[in-house]
Formats: sequence, structure tokens, C-alpha cells
Amino acid sequence: MKESGPLPVTLSDIEAAAARIAPFVKLTPVLTSQRLDVLLGAEIFFKCENFQRVGTFKTRGAHNAVFALDDAAAARGVVTHSSGNHAAALSLAARHRGIPACIVMPSNAPRTKVESVLRLGGEIRFCEPTMQAREAAAASIVAERGATLIHPYDNLAVIAGQGTAMVEFIGQVPGLDVIMAPVGGGGLMAGTSIAARGLKPGIRIIATEPEQADDAFRSWKQGELINDGMANTIADGLRTSVGSNGYTVMRALLDEFATVSEDAIIQATRLVWEVLKIVIEPSSAVPVAALLEGKVNLTDRKVGIILSGGNVDLDWLPWQPAQS
Amino acid sequence: MKESGPLPVTLSDIEAAAARIAPFVKLTPVLTSQRLDVLLGAEIFFKCENFQRVGTFKTRGAHNAVFALDDAAAARGVVTHSSGNHAAALSLAARHRGIPACIVMPSNAPRTKVESVLRLGGEIRFCEPTMQAREAAAASIVAERGATLIHPYDNLAVIAGQGTAMVEFIGQVPGLDVIMAPVGGGGLMAGTSIAARGLKPGIRIIATEPEQADDAFRSWKQGELINDGMANTIADGLRTSVGSNGYTVMRALLDEFATVSEDAIIQATRLVWEVLKIVIEPSSAVPVAALLEGKVNLTDRKVGIILSGGNVDLDWLPWQPAQS
Repeated sequence: MKESGPLPVTLSDIEAAAARIAPFVKLTPVLTSQRLDVLLGAEIFFKCENFQRVGTFKTRGAHNAVFALDDAAAARGVVTHSSGNHAAALSLAARHRGIPACIVMPSNAPRTKVESVLRLGGEIRFCEPTMQAREAAAASIVAERGATLIHPYDNLAVIAGQGTAMVEFIGQVPGLDVIMAPVGGGGLMAGTSIAARGLKPGIRIIATEPEQADDAFRSWKQGELINDGMANTIADGLRTSVGSNGYTVMRALLDEFATVSEDAIIQATRLVWEVLKIVIEPSSAVPVAALLEGKVNLTDRKVGIILSGGNVDLDWLPWQPAQS
Repeated sequence: MKESGPLPVTLSDIEAAAARIAPFVKLTPVLTSQRLDVLLGAEIFFKCENFQRVGTFKTRGAHNAVFALDDAAAARGVVTHSSGNHAAALSLAARHRGIPACIVMPSNAPRTKVESVLRLGGEIRFCEPTMQAREAAAASIVAERGATLIHPYDNLAVIAGQGTAMVEFIGQVPGLDVIMAPVGGGGLMAGTSIAARGLKPGIRIIATEPEQADDAFRSWKQGELINDGMANTIADGLRTSVGSNGYTVMRALLDEFATVSEDAIIQATRLVWEVLKIVIEPSSAVPVAALLEGKVNLTDRKVGIILSGGNVDLDWLPWQPAQS
């Protein structure tokens, strides 16, 4: 049932992206743990994009999109309507290029997200907290300034940039049998799949998603893009609907798709903090949750997991009882 | 006022330790953050011993002590009366050598500490929660079995083992101008100082301690070992009194000693979690607290900080209000 036809992004695009963004992103380390290997029943390598600048892989895609612009377009600036990690990443990329970044955010965006964009030099335009208002506000900035809209995950340069983590990962751990990553809008999973299949044709590619935000899974299974806005998960980075380009790539390249419960996401998040001693977002823990819940069987395989980010609110942790 | 005379541990001892323990310990990564550099006013390199096996640098000293034993002594096993990180580290080292480890623990030791020792194959002997009872229980096991007591920080092989982190660190960041570490019993600080001074004679060596557990600082300043048991700090790894060997080395080699407030320790712990995305114990944050509080002036210096460990209770974090 895999789609054929050319994909919107190629391995060459990703390799070009890797060269383009190299001065601005970190080569993130890979961690391992014998204790987790025993617990999860596989030999696991964790690619720590939580250590990436701005605490997220999105720094890669944002830099590729910003540095791929020609000088005339770049001078008019960039705009996006993400309130999350992409907003901060785009602000940093624009600052690195010396151009303005305008971020449209809902008026109820968390204070930490607002501060993070401002610290990185982004300009914020607040709007009503609906998707229509956000898109309208972004469109008006594009019209006013001639700024370029950089979509958080369906932009092709963004997808190519996200794929660079996988190129690095295979360089660090050439023997990987399996690669797993989480799916929100699909940019990371698409870029990862293209890089993985291109560099290691035999690798098994497994996407993972929360059961309670499984639009990409259902789209992939049914062969048509479903955007029904059903998303209610603690993995806040994965609440977005899957994009059209991400869907196309996943249909073509995925071997498997696992969905996981909220309980498993919370347990897996805590397990990674406790054993690896690193701070990850619940979104990052979704592939670990799939192993923990037995949704995939990877006994004795060398499994790569991309830990997507580490931006969490340290005032309250997912496994703690709700604050009164 | 620096003491002269030979030190109880030499750089050669530490280099021998590094070779001896290499198969059993991790070469831990060094992390950096532009954001922290700006905030703290120095170029900082963090040596992540929180990623060491068992989540602590103590794995190094325990392995050196266990593998330095001759076969006959080793066969009779090892014993210690730490209830903390050294207990778990010694259990792992003994398991690696295939010998028994008996850990004397107070009957009120936290469940997580008990579980961690048992998981690593240590045998636990409970005793009354007083230092006298702990020492007596350990002595009786030494008498019964001929086991070797491995003191958590004043044992010379332990001090040599702790120094191996610094040897690695200088290999990873040859240009360090300054090295900072926390002081509890003094094993890490002593080993670090000997390695640092031996490999880079001009390096500035700064010890750090909580104001509320400043026995090592007062001993160093006054030139006599003070063990008055005053310790009331959130940095639970630093509540122990400084040992005699640690004191001797620190008197001879330290350039500076900074003490920090409890508030600064808590703030620094959170800052490291939030920006570096890693889990560290409050004890590890003490050198960071010294920069945060302006207790040292290291503008534009290349500063190495050894983050000593990452074993914390994730049910409740230091910056959260007490549980009701």
C-alpha cells in the first residue's frame, strides 16, 4: 500500500541542509543506558535533540528555511504562527541571519513561550486564540511586509532541516537497525524517514504517536489525510494536525506506526529523566512509551530514538498530582 | 599558608586508576550553553558525571578501590557504611569484579537508596541510624568475613579514582583556566585538585561548599581539621564531614574556596535543569551557585565545573513548595 512517485524532499536536500546549518546548530550527543536496555528489551541509542539550541530539533528546520532564502526575500523578514518551539527556533535563526522574525501568538500563550521568543529577538504579534485568527494575522504580515511565512512543519526546507538530525545520528551510530521518532505535524518524522531510508535502505522506520492525538496514524493507515482536530494529550508538542507533506512522506516510507497511552507517556518521561538524567518533554518520550507498553517488539535490535526536545515547565511535572 | 610535603595521592596514582577503571565507567560528555555563559559571565564547560554509571562520579572511586585489591582480599568482599551514592557505586564495582559487597545502612534509609543497592547486587545490613552504630556494624562485618572496608571518601584508592574525571576533562577541554567542584567528604575535590595541578600547573582550583555545611571551608581557612557536624543543607551529598586526606590535599592545592547560600543552590539547580536540560542533584549545583551569587569573579575565563551526580527524588523538586 506504499505510495510511489517522487517525494517532496530528497536525501540531497537534507545533506545540503546539514552543510547550510552546521555553523548554527549543535552536534547533539547520543546517550545509552544498560539499565534502560534491560528494562526495554533492546539496545537503545538516544539522540539528544533536547540538548539542541533552544532545546528542540526545530532549530534545525528553522535555520535551514531562513538560510535557504535569497537575500532580497530574507531582508523582508520571516513570520510564523506557532506558539511553541518553532517560534523560538525561528527567532534564533532570524537573529543569526540578521533579519526580523515576527511571531503570531495567541493572547493566552504561556508566559515562558513569550519570554523565550523575546529573549531570542523575535517580535510578537498577539491575536485571538483561534487557528483562523492566527492564520489571518500571519497573512496580514506577509501582505504588509512581504515577509516569508515559514510554516512550522509542512515547509519543505523545514522538513529537510529536521532530517539533518538523522544524518548525524547514523554518523554517530552506523549500526542502527531501527529508527523511532514521534509525530506531531510530521516534519521530524518525514525528514528522519527520508534521511534514514536514503542512507540505510534496510533500516526499519517506526513512527509513534499518542493514542489521543492519532490523526497521523489514522491518515497513514487509511491512505487519506485526516485532520479532524482530535488531540488531547499531555505530549503538547504533538497536538498539531499532521501536514500534507509529512503525510505523503510517511505513507511512502514508514514500516510501522505505534500509538501509545497517556499513562505510558508519563511513565516513559519519568523513566528517561530518572535513568538517563536528562530533561525531556513528554512528546519526546512517545517512542520510549511504545517500547514500555510493548507496542513494538525490537528484542536485540539496535534502536535509535530521537528525543525531540526538552522544553518543559519545571514548576509542575507530568507525574505529579495536579496543583490545587 | 599552603602545606608542603608529599601528598597522599599522586598524579600517577590517578593515571593508573584511569587505566584500571576504563572498562567499567563511562567517558562522560561535556556540555556547554551560550545562554548560561551570558548569565554567569564566563565560558563554562560542564563535565556531566550525572551521566556516569549509577548517576554519580563515585562509580570511579569505588571501581578503583575494588579493582586495586589483590585477589585474596577481593575474594573476602568489601563493605561500607554509606547510605548514599557510594553504596550503589560500590555494589556495582563489586558485581563487576564478581565479589560480595555488604552495605551497612541506617534502618530509616530512603526506599530508593535501598532499591538501588539491591538492584546492583549489594547485600544490605540495617543498623540503628547513628554514626556509631554504622561504624560498629561495618567493623563487625570486617571482623567476621575479613572483608575490606572501603571508606566513601577518605580511602586513597577512592580519591585516586575520583581524580580520573579531571584527567578526562582536560583531555576534552585542554584550555581550561579554572576548575570548580563541590566538597562533601572531599574525595572528589582532592582527586580533582591533584589531577588538575599535575596536568595544568597554572590552573586555578576553586572548591565550593554550602554555607550551611562549611566544615571543609573552615578547616581549610583555619589550617586545622574541623569536624563539628554542623550540616543542614539541601545539598544532601555534601552533608558529610570532610575527611583527613581530603583536607590535607585541599590545604596544599586549593587557590580559593567559595561558600554559597541555600537559595542560590536551589536557583542554580533549577537553572541547570532548565537550560542544560539535565537532571543534577543540588550538590552538583553548588559551583554554579557560586557564579550565580557572585562569590567568584571569572569573567572571560574558561571554567570547568564537575557536575557530580544526578540522583534525585523526582516526586518532589527542591524549588517546589513542601508537600502537605
